Amino acid sequence: MNLYDAVIPVFLKMLGNVERWLDKAVAHAQAKKFDPELFLHERVALDQFSFTRQVQAACDQMKFTAAKMTGKTPPAHPDTETTIEELRARIRAVAAYLESFTREDFAGCEDRPCGHGWMQGKTMRAGDYLDHFALPNTYFHLATVYQMLRHRGVELGKADYIGSLPFS
Amino acid sequence: MNLYDAVIPVFLKMLGNVERWLDKAVAHAQAKKFDPELFLHERVALDQFSFTRQVQAACDQMKFTAAKMTGKTPPAHPDTETTIEELRARIRAVAAYLESFTREDFAGCEDRPCGHGWMQGKTMRAGDYLDHFALPNTYFHLATVYQMLRHRGVELGKADYIGSLPFS
Repeated sequence: MNLYDAVIPVFLKMLGNVERWLDKAVAHAQAKKFDPELFLHERVALDQFSFTRQVQAACDQMKFTAAKMTGKTPPAHPDTETTIEELRARIRAVAAYLESFTREDFAGCEDRPCGHGWMQGKTMRAGDYLDHFALPNTYFHLATVYQMLRHRGVELGKADYIGSLPFS
Repeated sequence: MNLYDAVIPVFLKMLGNVERWLDKAVAHAQAKKFDPELFLHERVALDQFSFTRQVQAACDQMKFTAAKMTGKTPPAHPDTETTIEELRARIRAVAAYLESFTREDFAGCEDRPCGHGWMQGKTMRAGDYLDHFALPNTYFHLATVYQMLRHRGVELGKADYIGSLPFS
């Protein structure tokens, strides 16, 4: 087992899924004759992150997961996106970063200490960081983005969320 | 590495988290003087699963994940819950089932073929099933439950979603 398999191909697929959700959101807005950028301001609750910030947070969690588990320094992304096209560029920048990783980068990484600044110096083993924080957090933001679109009538189904499956 | 660590302790913690979300939902309803069972009928979109069905789906995905990855037959849960207390009993039944698994059950399981009936006989290796289907699907339903409560004003924060972290 190599944790590369649990991170890189899965996150790359999910980023592609998000791009297809955006395609369907734009098509829905065009069919209904409203500005698709309106989606970017949606919030599940008014004291929560906006749609834009949810996409940024998903992107950041994926980027940090790969970087922290492998001991690398990720590129900075300053959260300046204000349009769907800029969000697509952010998604593609993170995808390009994830594609730069190899199985060797992750080989034997499972005990590497991983943490974030807000954890105040505390760390988890990389395997625990992935299982207990990075994956639940990544899917939290992705599911929230998907559900914001579903809530507003975009024609998405569960297969759009899950994406392709690696049948053997 | 043993995939037990990526499944059993994480799912048990998340089930405990859901019980605390239900505690806060009930407290919110009592403070606002409405029937807490009203939450059970919530839907993000009217052609989606209800709150009750989202909890049941999360429970089922956890149960099937452990069973399929280890080659066991899970108990049947017929989705008859209609109250918060019955949902709590379902959560506890799944937790008790997950607690019955050992690290030995998962030892060397990563290549075991896993699938669901709707996959029409196709299967994934257990590691792929976990990474590409079981985890994204479990967190989809959990995040949806959490966001339904947040949308209606229940005082939950991200720490309630993530729960305790295994710092080393």
